Amino acid sequence: MSGSRNFRRILLATLGVGLVAWLCYQPAAAQQAGQIVRVARIVVDAAQLPQYKAALKEGMETAVRVEPGVLALNAVYEKENPTHVMVLEVYASAAAYQAHLQTPHFKKYKATTKDMVKSLELVDVEPIALATKAK
Amino acid sequence: MSGSRNFRRILLATLGVGLVAWLCYQPAAAQQAGQIVRVARIVVDAAQLPQYKAALKEGMETAVRVEPGVLALNAVYEKENPTHVMVLEVYASAAAYQAHLQTPHFKKYKATTKDMVKSLELVDVEPIALATKAK
Repeated sequence: MSGSRNFRRILLATLGVGLVAWLCYQPAAAQQAGQIVRVARIVVDAAQLPQYKAALKEGMETAVRVEPGVLALNAVYEKENPTHVMVLEVYASAAAYQAHLQTPHFKKYKATTKDMVKSLELVDVEPIALATKAK
Repeated sequence: MSGSRNFRRILLATLGVGLVAWLCYQPAAAQQAGQIVRVARIVVDAAQLPQYKAALKEGMETAVRVEPGVLALNAVYEKENPTHVMVLEVYASAAAYQAHLQTPHFKKYKATTKDMVKSLELVDVEPIALATKAK
């Protein structure tokens, strides 16, 4: 009886470790069917750059945290042209992208930044490989 | 006794779920001190595009898998200009980047693609937020 309980415990522990490993290990992600991948190229008003970056960061981090279909948002600005911002966006599907546009955090980002953005170019892209190390 | 065992089970299950959540949830990674983040803009010879993409994908995925300091390599090409490739690169440090340049897989990528690349522009960038969902 005690042996059987120990066995069950060991089995459960093994399954638990396996589950964690399965949930956490991400090999370099290849393209998934239906994913939407895009690059946004944004030129920001220099006088409002700190506020713009804060609004972008907040909106992005919320989206990736709370929306199941927002897989990655990576935003950078050029060192030599700090008003030139680029965002690499990965959505699970077209539906996930449409849902993203309706969220309170995205609407807040758009409203907050509407007078900060001088130009916005959206470039549809296809991934060759999206490889992010599991942490 | 049975109540106490149930309580222990619920406690363990709760701790287990918490552990999985803690291990798997990665908030949007803010910039880490010393990280090198860069955008490579590459124009590829159209006639050799499939071979180029295969070589890039292989080199990238190997780098992220085997090099501790190569944190992410995300490569895409423009749908409307498929010869225009962009790679967003994240290295843990300048030393990690230098080490990357000396690896067999990077040298193989460079040798394989040297006659496929029509132009290469490296743009130093700073992250605003690098947010990738844990899978």
